[in-house]
Amino acid sequence: MKKNRLYSIIAFALLTLTTATAQTFVTAPPAGAAPGAARPSFRFPPRVISPEVHADQTVTFRYMAPNATKVELTAQFLKKNIALTKGEDGIWSVTTGKVKPDIYPYNFIVDGISVADPNNVDIFPNERFKGSLLDVKGKTPSVQDLQDVPHGKVTYVFYNSKNLDLVRPMLIYTPPGYTEDTQKEYPVLYLIHGMTDTQETWYKVGRMNYILDNLIAQGKAEPMIVVMPYANPFPALMKKNPATQMDLMGTKMFTDELLKEIIPYVEKNYRAKEGRDNRAIAGFSLGGRQTLGAGLSNPDKFAYVCPMAPAVFPQGLDQDFKETYASAEQLRTLKLLWIGCGKDDSLYAGAKALAKKLGTEKVKCETFYSSGGHTWMNCRLFLTTIAPKLFK
Amino acid sequence: MKKNRLYSIIAFALLTLTTATAQTFVTAPPAGAAPGAARPSFRFPPRVISPEVHADQTVTFRYMAPNATKVELTAQFLKKNIALTKGEDGIWSVTTGKVKPDIYPYNFIVDGISVADPNNVDIFPNERFKGSLLDVKGKTPSVQDLQDVPHGKVTYVFYNSKNLDLVRPMLIYTPPGYTEDTQKEYPVLYLIHGMTDTQETWYKVGRMNYILDNLIAQGKAEPMIVVMPYANPFPALMKKNPATQMDLMGTKMFTDELLKEIIPYVEKNYRAKEGRDNRAIAGFSLGGRQTLGAGLSNPDKFAYVCPMAPAVFPQGLDQDFKETYASAEQLRTLKLLWIGCGKDDSLYAGAKALAKKLGTEKVKCETFYSSGGHTWMNCRLFLTTIAPKLFK
Repeated sequence: MKKNRLYSIIAFALLTLTTATAQTFVTAPPAGAAPGAARPSFRFPPRVISPEVHADQTVTFRYMAPNATKVELTAQFLKKNIALTKGEDGIWSVTTGKVKPDIYPYNFIVDGISVADPNNVDIFPNERFKGSLLDVKGKTPSVQDLQDVPHGKVTYVFYNSKNLDLVRPMLIYTPPGYTEDTQKEYPVLYLIHGMTDTQETWYKVGRMNYILDNLIAQGKAEPMIVVMPYANPFPALMKKNPATQMDLMGTKMFTDELLKEIIPYVEKNYRAKEGRDNRAIAGFSLGGRQTLGAGLSNPDKFAYVCPMAPAVFPQGLDQDFKETYASAEQLRTLKLLWIGCGKDDSLYAGAKALAKKLGTEKVKCETFYSSGGHTWMNCRLFLTTIAPKLFK
Repeated sequence: MKKNRLYSIIAFALLTLTTATAQTFVTAPPAGAAPGAARPSFRFPPRVISPEVHADQTVTFRYMAPNATKVELTAQFLKKNIALTKGEDGIWSVTTGKVKPDIYPYNFIVDGISVADPNNVDIFPNERFKGSLLDVKGKTPSVQDLQDVPHGKVTYVFYNSKNLDLVRPMLIYTPPGYTEDTQKEYPVLYLIHGMTDTQETWYKVGRMNYILDNLIAQGKAEPMIVVMPYANPFPALMKKNPATQMDLMGTKMFTDELLKEIIPYVEKNYRAKEGRDNRAIAGFSLGGRQTLGAGLSNPDKFAYVCPMAPAVFPQGLDQDFKETYASAEQLRTLKLLWIGCGKDDSLYAGAKALAKKLGTEKVKCETFYSSGGHTWMNCRLFLTTIAPKLFK
C-alpha cells in the first residue's frame, strides 16, 4: 500500500516535470531537506521556476510563501525594492522591466527577512549573507558568458600553511592548453576578493574563468594562471594573530601569507614563470588594499599592480606611502600600475586621491573610472579591462 | 566631512572585529549586498557567529531578526524543530545538546520561511532549496575531515556535449601525486548525485575529496580519479529531449551522455586507465537508479557497480531487468555489485527487493544496510565503505 503510493506519486511527479510552469511537485524528499517539513508526508516544495529570464530581457521572479504577508525583491539592477504579488497557489511573483544584460546579486525580502532564491543554484559565496545571482544574457554572448571556446579549468586546492599553522583553501585557474602541453610555462595573476567574500567569489560571481577563456580565445589576453587565495584575515587568520589597529585590515598578514606560502606553493606545483615580470596582483575593495599593500611594498616581486576600488582613504595615504610602500624610485620601475573605480563608489575619492598622490611622486599610473558603484558588475569590467594589459 | 565619517566607522569596525562575540559591525557595504538595506546608511548586518561548535560538541545557532515573532531550527541531527530565543540585541539563539560528530544540513525557519544561515559559508548545493551545513568534529579527526595528509585536487571543468548540444559542467578529483608523476595512470570512479542535487554536491556535502585523501593516505583505497558529472536530466536536459513515462527519471538519457561524452572526455583529457576493470560507477538516490541503469546495462564497460539508496521500487524491478539491464549471465561477470541503504530510508524496501531479485538471478551482490535514512551522512558512509573495495 505505502510502497504503491510512493511509486505512484513519484511517477506523477515525473509527469508534472515535463511542463515548465510553476506547479506542485510531490515525491520523496531530497536528502538535504530538513526533516521537519519534508519527511513525514513526502511533500516536496512546489516546483517554482525562478528567476525566469524572458526573450525580451524582462525577468520573472517567483517565491513560494503561502503564509507571508509581504514579499519584495531587492536586486542590484533596481534602484529600490519592488513588491511581488501573491497568486492563488501561494506563489508570489513579479516581472521586471527590461534588464541590461549582466549578472546581478538579488534577494527576496519575505516579511522583512532576507532570503536567497531557493530555486536558483547560483549563489554568491560570502561569509555574511546569502544572495542569489541573476544572469541576463544579451543577444550576442558577452566576454563574461560561457561560450564554445577552449575552456580553462578552475581547481580547488588546499595547502598547508606553516606561516599560519592552518590548512588554507585556494582556487587556481589554468588556461586552455595547460594540460595538453606539459612543458609550457605561464605568467601568474594573483586575484584577491573583497571583504567578507571568499576564495570562490572571483570564480562564482566574477566569472574570471569565462572572461579569461574568451579573452584568450580572441587573442586579447596572454594565457595565464590565475590564483585566488582566501585572503580574508577574518575570521580564520584572526584566531592565530589578531590584527592591530596599525595593521589596518590585515594587509601585512596577507602579504606575509602571499610571499611565504602562496607564491612558493604555486611556483612549485604549477608551471609558473618566475620573476617580477611574470607576476601580477589585482584585487577588489579590501582586496584592492591588499593588492596595494603587497604590490607596492614589493615592486621587485610584482611588475603589474591593479587595485580595483581599493579600500584606501584620502586621509590615510601619506601614512600608507610612508610606512608600507616602497620608494617612489622603486615604484617607477613597475610595468603597470592601474587603478579602477566606479564613479558612484564610496571609495572613489580614495582612488582619485591615490592617483593624485602617485602623480605627485612621479609614479606613472593608469586610471579607469567606470559608471556604477561598488559592485561585482564593475569587478568583471575591471578584470576584462586589465587582463589584456598584463604580461605584454 | 563625509569622508572622515566613512574612515572613522571603518576604523571602528576593524576594532570591533578583534573580539569574537556577536556584535554590530558597521562599515562600507560588501559588494554583494543588495542596495535597499545596506547602501544608503553604510549599515552592515551585525556580526553574528553561527554556528558555534563548542568543545563539548554542543552547538549554538544564532540568527539576527529583530522583527521576527518566531525562529526555529530544523536540522538533520534533530528529531523535531527546536525554538530559538530572542535576545535584547535582536539576535535569536539556541544551544543544542551534544551533537554526534558529523556534517548535517540545517535551516532556520523564520516566521515560517526557510532560510539558510547567512553567517555560514558552507551551503548545500541544490536546485530546489538553500540549506546550510553544520560540521561537528570529534576529538580525533574522522575520515571525512580535512587532515594534514597529501591532498588531491577537485577541478571544475566544462565540456561541450555534442550529444546534448549543451556545454555541461563536471567536477573531477585527481588524487595526491597526480600532478607530480606525469606518467602514472589511474582507474576512474564515476560518482553521481541525487535528485535536485548538482555536480557540486558530492564535493561540498559528500566531502569525497577528504574521504579519498584520507583513505589513500592510510593505504586503504587505491589512488583513483573521481568524476562527478551534472547528472540531473531536469531542467537542462529536459529542454533538449523531454523524458517519457517509460524512460523514468531520464536514466537512459544520462547513460547516453555518460558513454558518448563523459567517459570519452575523461579518457582523452586525464591519465585514466581504460577498460571495464578500471571503471566503477556509484550514485545516490536518483543517481543510484542511474548507476544501475548505466552499470547493469553495460557490464562490459563497468566492473564495479555501487548504487546507494537507489530510487528503485519493488513493483518496477521486473520491468527494469527485462527492459534495461544486461542478461544475468553478463551481470555475473561483475567484480563488485554493491547495494547500500539506510534502514530508515523510504527506499529500503526497493534496495532489499533488488538484492533479492539479484539473488534469484544468481548474480552475486553485497549489501550494506546502515542505520539512518535518506541522508548525506549515509552517503559519506557509503563512499567510505566502497572506496576500499574498488580496483583491487
